[in-house]
Amino acid sequence: MPTPSVLPPSGLCVGLDLDPAALPGRFRDSVDGILPAATAIVEATRHVAACYKINLAFYERYGRRGIDVLYAVRDVVGASYVIADAKRGDIGNTSAAYADAIFDDLKADAITVAPYMGRDSVEPFLRRRNTMVYVLALTSNPGSADFQRLPVGDRPLYRHVMDTVLQWSGEATVGFVVGATRTRELAELREAYPDVPFLIPGIGTQGGDAIATVEANGTGPAAYNVSRGLASLLTDDGTSDAVRAEAERLAAIMDRR
Amino acid sequence: MPTPSVLPPSGLCVGLDLDPAALPGRFRDSVDGILPAATAIVEATRHVAACYKINLAFYERYGRRGIDVLYAVRDVVGASYVIADAKRGDIGNTSAAYADAIFDDLKADAITVAPYMGRDSVEPFLRRRNTMVYVLALTSNPGSADFQRLPVGDRPLYRHVMDTVLQWSGEATVGFVVGATRTRELAELREAYPDVPFLIPGIGTQGGDAIATVEANGTGPAAYNVSRGLASLLTDDGTSDAVRAEAERLAAIMDRR
Repeated sequence: MPTPSVLPPSGLCVGLDLDPAALPGRFRDSVDGILPAATAIVEATRHVAACYKINLAFYERYGRRGIDVLYAVRDVVGASYVIADAKRGDIGNTSAAYADAIFDDLKADAITVAPYMGRDSVEPFLRRRNTMVYVLALTSNPGSADFQRLPVGDRPLYRHVMDTVLQWSGEATVGFVVGATRTRELAELREAYPDVPFLIPGIGTQGGDAIATVEANGTGPAAYNVSRGLASLLTDDGTSDAVRAEAERLAAIMDRR
Repeated sequence: MPTPSVLPPSGLCVGLDLDPAALPGRFRDSVDGILPAATAIVEATRHVAACYKINLAFYERYGRRGIDVLYAVRDVVGASYVIADAKRGDIGNTSAAYADAIFDDLKADAITVAPYMGRDSVEPFLRRRNTMVYVLALTSNPGSADFQRLPVGDRPLYRHVMDTVLQWSGEATVGFVVGATRTRELAELREAYPDVPFLIPGIGTQGGDAIATVEANGTGPAAYNVSRGLASLLTDDGTSDAVRAEAERLAAIMDRR
């Protein structure tokens, strides 16, 4: 029996991937707006969020100041489940260093990993007990057509990635990033991997509709990420009532546990 | 005519990917050993190094303290050419954020990028003038067999990545990470892409022999990275004479400009 801490998050995943240029009013255009905006979003969503996804790029872009904000935002999330959207992947000892950074120092519960460099680049992340590793499989951006969908024998590359990664050993729970932009593909993947956790980005701004996505996924464990679809609802004076209402609406659609 | 600042580095690339557990004597086992060790290595190699490669993982693993050390090491390198070995790659606006972090804040001259997410994940890096982007093609680790070498039609995936990336537009100079562990493949790639810059890791500890690698590459622009092969020569009392001698020996082999 897995312990509760390794159960994959399922339901609404709130993205704290905050671009100050897209924030309203007093939060706008400054790294200093990120922490109060993230705090407002977390407070308005904690009662319905299955997890929070923090994309490190949006913090690293500001250098050391951004890293300070990253850790402050992680503290605000507190005991809720944190996915570090880092998309790391490097040779063995380097991936091990990234695993140290993400799990030990940032104290994330899960990480996203890029598969291109293969087994020894992913296994240092898989070695960790009580963690989750979401490997990029089929992403939600247009560029997913360039390599992920290339035919390798009778399957696209992303299917080959999924089948191969699932054979690797480790203590972590393994899941995949599966974009929501094409619901037919999501339904096919869910049929092929009924119990494998998916992290599903792309709902809202990237074109994925929440209801259609949840129907395509069915009851398999899935964290549905919404970032700009919530952050954009912060108002100029910093109130988050619309964020709360939209999070509750989305969570009701997504909660199939 | 390209301006000198976009000429790719060619020759010895000194890796500042320092693992305190592998450092000698007074540098050992502490993040505080990294800056003095890196300083000693830079001072012992600056007269022969074509560039320095800094793998961000070895700094990020120490959290905020590590980021401070990263920026301090970057300052020590000063005006010499810096490759940020970051292996980033994400959807468009996120890759743009990473490009901000690496080029504007860390002030690197070049970056390594992971291709799995395709064109819109790479193009934000390509947009920068007077920079270089090394895309992962064929890496030097065992896991390169898992996906990079998969057959896509009549070519392995890594050749497909190279041909595809070279069709993308941008202001940056495009190169590829090409592992040195199989010299026959390196020779074939150099024949196929005679003028494309390569970043060649894996010399020394990963099994690549310097002379055989340089012979396989010929005269094409190539930065040959050596990390542990130099760092391991720091002595317990912190002298770097052996580092200097080995760097001079390697640079004499690698300098085909």
